[in-house]
Amino acid sequence: MKRREFLKAGGVGLAASAAVAAPAIAQSMPEIKWRLAASWPKSLDTLYGGVEFFTKRVADLTDNKFQIQPFAAGEIVGGLQVLDAVQNGTVEMGNTALYYYWGKNPAFTFGTSLPFGLNTRQQMSWMIHGGGMDMLNDLLKEYKCIGVPTGSTGAQMGGWFRKEIKSTEDLKGLKFRVGGFAGTIIAKVGGVPQQIAAGDIYPALEKGTIDAAEWVGPYDDEKLGFVKVAKYYYYPGWWEGTGQGHNIMNLEKWNALPKHYQAAITTASYDTYAWVTGKYDYVNPPALKRLLASGAILKPFPQEVLETCYKAANEIYADLSKTNAHFGKMHASLAAFRSDSLAWMQVAELSFDSFMMRMRTKA
Amino acid sequence: MKRREFLKAGGVGLAASAAVAAPAIAQSMPEIKWRLAASWPKSLDTLYGGVEFFTKRVADLTDNKFQIQPFAAGEIVGGLQVLDAVQNGTVEMGNTALYYYWGKNPAFTFGTSLPFGLNTRQQMSWMIHGGGMDMLNDLLKEYKCIGVPTGSTGAQMGGWFRKEIKSTEDLKGLKFRVGGFAGTIIAKVGGVPQQIAAGDIYPALEKGTIDAAEWVGPYDDEKLGFVKVAKYYYYPGWWEGTGQGHNIMNLEKWNALPKHYQAAITTASYDTYAWVTGKYDYVNPPALKRLLASGAILKPFPQEVLETCYKAANEIYADLSKTNAHFGKMHASLAAFRSDSLAWMQVAELSFDSFMMRMRTKA
Repeated sequence: MKRREFLKAGGVGLAASAAVAAPAIAQSMPEIKWRLAASWPKSLDTLYGGVEFFTKRVADLTDNKFQIQPFAAGEIVGGLQVLDAVQNGTVEMGNTALYYYWGKNPAFTFGTSLPFGLNTRQQMSWMIHGGGMDMLNDLLKEYKCIGVPTGSTGAQMGGWFRKEIKSTEDLKGLKFRVGGFAGTIIAKVGGVPQQIAAGDIYPALEKGTIDAAEWVGPYDDEKLGFVKVAKYYYYPGWWEGTGQGHNIMNLEKWNALPKHYQAAITTASYDTYAWVTGKYDYVNPPALKRLLASGAILKPFPQEVLETCYKAANEIYADLSKTNAHFGKMHASLAAFRSDSLAWMQVAELSFDSFMMRMRTKA
Repeated sequence: MKRREFLKAGGVGLAASAAVAAPAIAQSMPEIKWRLAASWPKSLDTLYGGVEFFTKRVADLTDNKFQIQPFAAGEIVGGLQVLDAVQNGTVEMGNTALYYYWGKNPAFTFGTSLPFGLNTRQQMSWMIHGGGMDMLNDLLKEYKCIGVPTGSTGAQMGGWFRKEIKSTEDLKGLKFRVGGFAGTIIAKVGGVPQQIAAGDIYPALEKGTIDAAEWVGPYDDEKLGFVKVAKYYYYPGWWEGTGQGHNIMNLEKWNALPKHYQAAITTASYDTYAWVTGKYDYVNPPALKRLLASGAILKPFPQEVLETCYKAANEIYADLSKTNAHFGKMHASLAAFRSDSLAWMQVAELSFDSFMMRMRTKA
């Protein structure tokens, strides 16, 4: 007890001196409180769970001195307003999918997933070692932000369709709820992309206001109940070979942080990548089994449909690269890496995985 | 100047009080120095590069107060003595592949890679969310250690062979340098596994003392020059669908750390996973191209060879599960997860990757 009282007295002395100037020792672990706006509802224990994991890690790393309070979509700003809120300083940071902001600049799609782009490991490799994150930060700087990658969803599903898709003809006029930049490709091949918030998708699909809807993958999709109103579950989600999340920080607030608090955000963000991606990989398999038991009919998109969309996507990329320097630079970098990476991935990775898949059904 | 002097005086006051009892503020960031013994030579800028990345991150996270000095294999102890050195407290921590210690307990192989086990993402998912790391820590506790996952090599190659492998018959009597527990499977199908340190493999292969050797993958293998003396480069390395590294800490030293320094090690270790795995995924593709230009002949193991080895592996696992509680528990857990995971991975992940691979060669 005596020791505590002694220390408490010492603490008061420090507090008093802080009125004159913050002492060096106290500066090394200042108490800082930030707010984080997430693009996800709390019901997504994958992505929002990752945000809670991240803020806990930052607190753990700083002896609870750096407290980041997370807010779900809609609590401070809507899920698609996170970049604006961070840019304006309404919140110090956000957790979001950068492709939500493709309307500001289509190059934001490289942050989350370029359609027909990279898979989860390729995306992380390109961002860390291929200059991808530096190029994204050149773009984010124009919005007074800096970013660091966090969790990925893994490759996503192609969504829930009320009718079978047998050829590109079946996409013509199809009202399809699809996220982000991918809608421009759907439109180019004759579909009618729809922007609908998560909570409104189910009733629209039930009433037939829309014909199809994609969200994420088995575990997240199951919560929205799509299987009850649209049985055909298509794959792959060619617009999201990965679904890469980012933490974004207001640049001025970031620069004012002690270096080791910056390190806490950076390191905990990459830790969150392992946690979130690992979680998706753990919860999706049983969710897929449950969906199949509930009547979902798994269907691969026909090769012709994929090739038509692939061609349309590349035409859009070629056009954008001519007029948008960010887009052109990132696309050239990503495409060069992807080509070499695929040649390697199909050797050890693909042959190991496909052998194990064959033996699973054989056993 | 006045402010500094004022603070200095305050600092002296604190130092004086520390003689009575360490003040809370000074305790929150104590200066601690640790030594880390790695299982890798410095020439492996992938794995040893990951160790340097990790120790830098820990310093960054703690305002340079927690300094972990890394040592390469052989500087303090040999690459295969890291667990002993950490257990004995010769060093506070190590960075290693747990399967090196399969001679102490074959269940250590689950830490790095069970032959015909999991791929990189599956391994991380199983460790974090499937209880894998908890089970490994139950085992590590018997060696007075605690572990946390770090970087992975990705799926490895099957190695360099002087002659073609057309059937399991060609493995009979084959002197094959192969790491870890996999040698028991090679022996069961008639091969002669060899334990040879990295630096001695090349001359043995050149002289024909051995017939084949596996190491890691294109980038690391290239440095050892195997392509000059054994042209056939087989895939996949079915004994390493991933090559998962671990940081291991002496349990007593770990428990004495402040909680936020423990958090620094944990979080920086997962950050290192993203960095190392991303690095392998970035440097392997161009290395493979260079090896092919140098005359390497890529060959898949025949399906019959893979199936024979798979059967032999499962017989060994069944036997070990009867007598080794750690092995039995981890194998049951891993096998259940793997089965569901493969069923899911072949939907979105495999169909996305394989479409992209097809389009690469078509374009």
